[in-house]
Amino acid sequence: MQLIEGKPIGEKINQETKEKAENLKRHGVVPGLAVVLVGTDPASVSYVRSKDRVSQDLGFHSQKIELPEETSETDLLQIVKELNADSQIHGILVQSPLPKQIDESKVTLALDPAKDVDGFHPINVGKLAIGDPSGIVPCTPLGCQKLLLEVGANIVGSRVVILGRSMLVGKPLAFLLMAKGPGGDATVTVVHSRSRDLVEICSSAEILIAAMGQPGFVKKEHVREGAIVIDVGTTRVEDPTRKKGFRIAGDVDFDEVAPKTRAITPVPGGVGPMTIAMLMQNTLKACQQQTGLFV
Amino acid sequence: MQLIEGKPIGEKINQETKEKAENLKRHGVVPGLAVVLVGTDPASVSYVRSKDRVSQDLGFHSQKIELPEETSETDLLQIVKELNADSQIHGILVQSPLPKQIDESKVTLALDPAKDVDGFHPINVGKLAIGDPSGIVPCTPLGCQKLLLEVGANIVGSRVVILGRSMLVGKPLAFLLMAKGPGGDATVTVVHSRSRDLVEICSSAEILIAAMGQPGFVKKEHVREGAIVIDVGTTRVEDPTRKKGFRIAGDVDFDEVAPKTRAITPVPGGVGPMTIAMLMQNTLKACQQQTGLFV
Repeated sequence: MQLIEGKPIGEKINQETKEKAENLKRHGVVPGLAVVLVGTDPASVSYVRSKDRVSQDLGFHSQKIELPEETSETDLLQIVKELNADSQIHGILVQSPLPKQIDESKVTLALDPAKDVDGFHPINVGKLAIGDPSGIVPCTPLGCQKLLLEVGANIVGSRVVILGRSMLVGKPLAFLLMAKGPGGDATVTVVHSRSRDLVEICSSAEILIAAMGQPGFVKKEHVREGAIVIDVGTTRVEDPTRKKGFRIAGDVDFDEVAPKTRAITPVPGGVGPMTIAMLMQNTLKACQQQTGLFV
Repeated sequence: MQLIEGKPIGEKINQETKEKAENLKRHGVVPGLAVVLVGTDPASVSYVRSKDRVSQDLGFHSQKIELPEETSETDLLQIVKELNADSQIHGILVQSPLPKQIDESKVTLALDPAKDVDGFHPINVGKLAIGDPSGIVPCTPLGCQKLLLEVGANIVGSRVVILGRSMLVGKPLAFLLMAKGPGGDATVTVVHSRSRDLVEICSSAEILIAAMGQPGFVKKEHVREGAIVIDVGTTRVEDPTRKKGFRIAGDVDFDEVAPKTRAITPVPGGVGPMTIAMLMQNTLKACQQQTGLFV
């Protein structure tokens, strides 16, 4: 059993991104990422801090915009509009979840699709489904695919089962893995809360990806002997034995499942570090596409 | 075994569309559909003729634009631009395939997404994947879903296998059937030319949809006892015994497969008539959305 550690892989990708950013700087261009945080949700604060820090580490122009919990939709849309028009900013990320007075889909639609480094704008989702490489692909699915490639998974023609049909992970990952060409060509099944025969379907998978946000849901009976398992779950679970009072739990019962697998990601330290690395790669790509400088 | 006949179902839908079009007329609005044909491909000529005829039957304003085979991309894009700006036209369909001097994806991108009644523009594809009901869904997948509902298929939680991953049918149909809510919630697997274990995967399906354009590919070993089979294939196969010199062949070996099924579509006469009915429904929806008249 191989442990698929996202941290060193993410660092390698960040290193590549940093070098490309330096090439751009020699042409007078600095990739710019704006991260917008509304409110003080602790997980969001922590994500935004990490994104800002990595962005700076890579030599990007990093702009962190922190807004109060009671920010109106109109005000947030105005800020998005200004960032769309700001030529120093190539990528915009509005941290999810947003307070309930703000319609998240309106904010997504307001983003310039070229700057939508989360890849959530319908035009980017559509381009992903179509296989148009000019689109921006959501970071977490991209990170999962990268992990599979790094671990030497034979994706072509293989049976992939994805647990969860969210637009954050399940669906875009299905598009990525069923697409024609390198990193794709898999036979993909998406299962979800309404699916029957879960054990039978999951245990047929050569590659099993858990992304439904239910800690420990995937047990050994869901897993085929020798499968590769990617655990996208990151649920905060109360844990009084930890200093912070919680731990991050994956969707896979790791202790039970790991011995059956050929390779498996830990949580934390598996997919998590990849997501930020892919966000930086997306920002670089957005910068290259907006400036026409592919150096 | 029940034969799923698309013609009466399509006619029923057309009747509903006609009534809604009459309601719109009482408000001074006539749904307008422009169909653009480039060249003289016999199948395309025949499709365009049918679309124009049904459109007129439903009381739509129907505009048929026939262009020579050697039409340049620039000229076609100019025509699309004019149709986008024409307030009498609510839906535009550019008949595929286009001659090779024209980049089909450029034409799709040039369409006003609101008038893209084929549902091929990336923003419509993205909206479908996201589940945004303001988008326009491709006609053939919509027709397949409608047939399943008409035949009383229990889609929720059922195992659906789709053969073929095209943007015309396979992928959008996968999005439709895995979406949350009525007509969706299925467990969908998409198989294709690179898939292994085809027999095993296909024969696990409660609903099997063949859309790869390989006449007679699906044999009895691919089909589970009591499955519902939808055959989207419409390949012209030479047949000297027919007056026209060809016949339309489906992807399913009907004679061999039908006895095992609970219900199956014939070819022709199954999905085909549904596609035009859904095109008319899409045109009506586009008209309603553009005018704000939901009568």
